[in-house]
Order: sequence, then structure tokens, then C-alpha cells
Amino acid sequence: MIVFLTDWGNSHYVGICKGVIRQISDSEIIDLTHEISSFNAREAMYILYRSFYHFPKNTIFLVVVDYGVGSSRKAIAAKTRNYYFVGPDNGIFTLVFEEEPPIEIRELNNKKYHYLNSQTFHGRDIFAPAAAYITNGKFKELGDLLPNYATLPYIKPKKSNKKITGEVAYIDKFGNIETNIPFEWIKEFETLKIRKKRKYIEIPVVNYYSEVLPGQLIAHNDSTDYLEIAINQGNAANLLKLKSGDFLELIL
Amino acid sequence: MIVFLTDWGNSHYVGICKGVIRQISDSEIIDLTHEISSFNAREAMYILYRSFYHFPKNTIFLVVVDYGVGSSRKAIAAKTRNYYFVGPDNGIFTLVFEEEPPIEIRELNNKKYHYLNSQTFHGRDIFAPAAAYITNGKFKELGDLLPNYATLPYIKPKKSNKKITGEVAYIDKFGNIETNIPFEWIKEFETLKIRKKRKYIEIPVVNYYSEVLPGQLIAHNDSTDYLEIAINQGNAANLLKLKSGDFLELIL
Amino acid sequence: MIVFLTDWGNSHYVGICKGVIRQISDSEIIDLTHEISSFNAREAMYILYRSFYHFPKNTIFLVVVDYGVGSSRKAIAAKTRNYYFVGPDNGIFTLVFEEEPPIEIRELNNKKYHYLNSQTFHGRDIFAPAAAYITNGKFKELGDLLPNYATLPYIKPKKSNKKITGEVAYIDKFGNIETNIPFEWIKEFETLKIRKKRKYIEIPVVNYYSEVLPGQLIAHNDSTDYLEIAINQGNAANLLKLKSGDFLELIL
Repeated sequence: MIVFLTDWGNSHYVGICKGVIRQISDSEIIDLTHEISSFNAREAMYILYRSFYHFPKNTIFLVVVDYGVGSSRKAIAAKTRNYYFVGPDNGIFTLVFEEEPPIEIRELNNKKYHYLNSQTFHGRDIFAPAAAYITNGKFKELGDLLPNYATLPYIKPKKSNKKITGEVAYIDKFGNIETNIPFEWIKEFETLKIRKKRKYIEIPVVNYYSEVLPGQLIAHNDSTDYLEIAINQGNAANLLKLKSGDFLELIL
Repeated sequence: MIVFLTDWGNSHYVGICKGVIRQISDSEIIDLTHEISSFNAREAMYILYRSFYHFPKNTIFLVVVDYGVGSSRKAIAAKTRNYYFVGPDNGIFTLVFEEEPPIEIRELNNKKYHYLNSQTFHGRDIFAPAAAYITNGKFKELGDLLPNYATLPYIKPKKSNKKITGEVAYIDKFGNIETNIPFEWIKEFETLKIRKKRKYIEIPVVNYYSEVLPGQLIAHNDSTDYLEIAINQGNAANLLKLKSGDFLELIL
Repeated sequence: MIVFLTDWGNSHYVGICKGVIRQISDSEIIDLTHEISSFNAREAMYILYRSFYHFPKNTIFLVVVDYGVGSSRKAIAAKTRNYYFVGPDNGIFTLVFEEEPPIEIRELNNKKYHYLNSQTFHGRDIFAPAAAYITNGKFKELGDLLPNYATLPYIKPKKSNKKITGEVAYIDKFGNIETNIPFEWIKEFETLKIRKKRKYIEIPVVNYYSEVLPGQLIAHNDSTDYLEIAINQGNAANLLKLKSGDFLELIL
């Protein structure tokens, strides 16, 4: 099974890659999501990390989210204890590889297993065919062994007696702030304070939006057991001027 | 075959549920749509009702649309003459159960068939696995028998000599007003009048948007044989200040 | 394999058509995209043309994008050397049929192979079942032989010493201008000039958005080897007042 994650929206680019896969393999293709914000490798890193372990053993994750800049990076495929991961070597696998260390990493430089040779559509030409060839048992032939992989620096969540720090994982389409802070750490509190410049804003910890008036901030449990900061019928990221990767400091 | 309907958009929550299903079952998963407005159980009720009978016998409908409030509700699976339905017992099945009365309803309280035990993601932990286990013949083991199910009150469409009443089924993404009034009832008329506060607005019954000028209201046949009220290149719901569930009165 | 392309978004209309197909056929259904702009047959023509050849031989393309006007058009299915195409005879196949000339065209007028008989949902009632019946070997029974098909006039790209002309293929969701001009023709140039009314605007030819300041125009290679004109963090179509089908003149 190939699980497909990109920042392309549900565009024909997704459909084209499925066509290329079907030229090589009959393996089922499941969309994880294609709604990652454009060029947001950090968001992809978090979404993948919160999703991969719900899929059966031997699933191949095809992840194509790149930065929008011109720096070169390798194309890789990695085998871990339970899964395969295929994508750009730009740090998107940082968190999953902490849990599932790569046993073997291949650089996708064997042109025999490329589809076409464009500069602009590596998803179609390198990554999708690599995922498909892995279903055919060709992992070791995809290219040279690599000793390591790129990581994306991130702020690990930390908890002290009075303070929690972490980072914004991503902003969802409603402007809700998804953090990398386990909700477990704050669930016993009735409120928390978030620092905004020199001021602290107090936010109630609630179960439902409807517990506060429209326009008010809330802290609650997102669907994957992390703290989410939201506004009832509003855009929390705009109000707090926060974006993916920003430092968070919460006072309990 | 599992047919999947939510209000999550095409997010990773959808992908995660498919991963959970694949841990249990190889049954095909088809997305009905995930574009239901957030927390709009009424919209889900209508979309399901207008769609279910186009699927083959024995299809399992996995419907996860909840209210955004904290009231408790059961999780259920129901067997009907031709189908299975899995979802929250909040009234989303009201209309389909009028056509396909449940033969047997199970409360999904057998924790053996739950996946994880979160408070926040019943789609992943209760509903998706239940749908998957039904494909494995485990319907009767999912939990205790229930004698009845929740219904969502709605305004049944009625037609008299000079007047038709009904309700707004849902507002689509363009602001078109989808009603629960059969188009059949108005197709012979050239115009109808809709009440807006104390005034009546006359609307032409047409086949195509292009029959009126931009900005003008039209009444026409939506794709599923119900009356839709729209504005050529405009937002009818905003103009008429109507939302899902609102009462409609049309004068012929 | 059936590949499905519409302008319906990921709505329940898509899901319903898959249900109808599953009543007839078990053939895999892959979504090419459903994000074509409403009623934009020209955009569908280009997206299909840039995608079809990435799918395996014998793929059936189910394309339902119609004009939003009341003119009648036939419903057709065509067999080419490598593929089948099913959809309205409104010109959406103009470009693919230049590359893959139809060997046999059938008008979908055999009501035995229709599903229901609505005026408004030909996708469900005529096109989806036709695609499904083709997987069952019923192509020749779908209706009468047709000698020809409708074409959509478009401006073929042309290159002279100092000038390139062509047209806007479509505007993507970010407002980027997708042209029908091969990027190959301009890749050796550092800038090009585009005519806007009486003035010429100079645009740098770059690889990445980040090579210019926010708000500046760029010319670059889209993912399918055509020239795209975009603005770094802006909407090029709005600025240049261009839409699908508009004439383009570039000075080198």
C-alpha cells in the first residue's frame, strides 16, 4: 500500500502521479492528505508523524513537500522496521525517523527507475516511480546507499513546574494553532497563559468551542492528543501572529 | 464497500481513518464527500439521503458528522434491508431510516472493537473500526442491541394550491440554497415568489444561469431533482439571509 | 481503470457517480482532479491533454465538464489507439484527439445503458455508466456511430525570431497564468516582455519564486513543461487581467 502526502491540493498533479504508479504497480494508493500548506515541510513533518503509525506494516509513504527555494537536496527512500518512506531529503522525516530509525537509506539516483527527466516535477519523475518500484521489491536497486539523512531543527516540547515551551506545528485552514505540546500536560489546568510580546493572555482550557463566546480564545485537545489554540468562530493564528515553527511559551 | 462521509475536508484525519480500516479489512473505501460544513449534521443528513441509494447493496456508510457541542450521544451501527450505516446517533440517519428502516441497531460499546480510546477522535477510534469489522461479519458483536435511534426534526415539504413550504437543506459552497422541495412541484411554473420578511421576491424558474443577468435570482433544478435557489454569479444565501434548516415559504 | 475528471469539486456528486459505476463494474476509479473551474471546458481540455499519456494503455477517461449554457451537445465515447474517452461532445477532447485520433466514436444514445433519466445530471445518468460499461466490453453497444466530433478553437503556440504567441490555458487557484507555450522556447532567455494594452512589461525568467521580491512577476517552468507567469506571493491573473483562452504575445 502506498500512502500519498503532498502540498499540491487535489490537483491533476496528484492524478498524474497515480497514473505513473499504475504503469509500474497495482498496489493500492491511499491519500493521506494533499492539503499541506505550499512549501511547508515542517507541517508535512508533523502531519506525517501524527499519522504514519495508524497504517499497516510495510506501508510505503510517498511524501512530496519541498521548500520553495532553489537549494539542492537529495531524493531518498528509507526502510525502517515497519515501513518505507520516499521523498526529498529536506528534513520532512525528522520526527518519524526518531521513532522509526532508518535501517537502510537509498539515494534515488538510479536513472533506470526514473520516469521522465524534468527539473520541475520530481514527484512524477522520481518519487512516485520509486514508491511503485518498492512494491515490486526493487528498494535496493533504487540507488546508492546513504549513511545519513537531513533533519529539520525544531523546538522539542518541555515542561517545568510553571512553564511549558514548544513550537507551532502548523496552522490549520481555520487559523487554529496546532502545537507540538501534548494535551496531557495541560489537561488538569483550567486556564493557561500564552505570551504575546510583553503581555500574557489567559486562555481557558475547554472541551468544546461552545463553552466560550464567539471571538474568545480557547485551549483544547485536537484530534491527535496535542494542544490546539483556537478562537470560537475566529482565526487564532492571525490574532496571536503565530506561524508554523514559532516558539511557544505557556505559563500554567 | 465502505462509503465515507465527514465534515473534515480532505485532511489527514480522513487518511488516518483509512489506515485504521486497512489494519482490519481490505474492503474498498469510496469517499462520498468530506466537504460537509463543519458540525452541520442536517447537511450530512440530506447529502446522505440523496446519495445512498446509488450504491450497491451491502454498502456500509461510515458517516462522521457531529454537532460542535458537548452533549453526549451514542455511537451506533444499523443494519437495514440493503445497507449498513455507522455513525453518531445524533439524527444524521433520520431521512435514510424513513426509506430504509433499521432492522437491527447496535450501540458501539464493545471496547474489544475500538481502536484507541481518545475523547476527541471517535471517527478513528470507534466509527472507522466498526465499519471495517462489519465487512468481516462482526456486526452483531459491535455492542448491545438498541431499540431506537435519535431523529433530527425537519420541516417536511408540503404543497397546497397556491403555496409550497419546506426547509433549506443546506447551503453549497457557492452560496446556492439547496431546498428539500421536489423540483417536480414547481417545474410547470414560470416564476415563484419567496417570502423575505414582509416582502415577496419574484424569482424566474429557469434551466440555466445564463438565462438571467448576473446578480439575479433564479429557481432551478439541482442535480438531484430538488429546487435550488441561486444567483447568477452571486451568493443567494447571503442575500436572502438563509441557512440550513430555515423555513421556506414559496407562493406560486 | 477509469480516470475521473470534473469541475464539481470533491462533492457528493463525485461520490454518487462512483456508486453508479460500482453497480456495473469493479474497475478501479482514480480521480484525475475535480478542481476544474466551473463550466471551464477549455481548462479541462488542457488538463486532460497534459495528463492522459501518463496513464496505462486502455485507461478510460471519464470527463464531465460542460459549458454553463443551454446549448445542446451530444454525449460521446471514443476509442483511440491507446485509450477510451467518455464525455460531452463540446470540444474538451480537441487536444487529445490531435495526438490520439479517435478510431471509433459512439453517441451515447442507447438508453439501455443509461442509469436514470434526468435532465440535469448526465454525469450520473449517462457518462459514468458508459465508462463502466466500457470496462465490461460494451463500447460498441453504447449507441450509434458518429463520423466526427466537436472541436474547441484555440490559439496554437507560434514562435518567430523575436516573438512568441499563444493563449492562456487556464488560471490556477493561486492566480498563476498557465500558458500553452512550451517552456523550451524561452528557457535560454533571461527576460521576456508581455504586452498589456499598449505597454510591455518585462518579466525575468527564473527557476524559483524566491529569486524575486514579493509582488514581482516571474516567468518559469510549470510542472508539465509549459511557461507559467506568476507573481511571488501575488495573483498574476488579476494584475494582467488575463483569463483562460486569452491571447498572449511575448517579445523576446
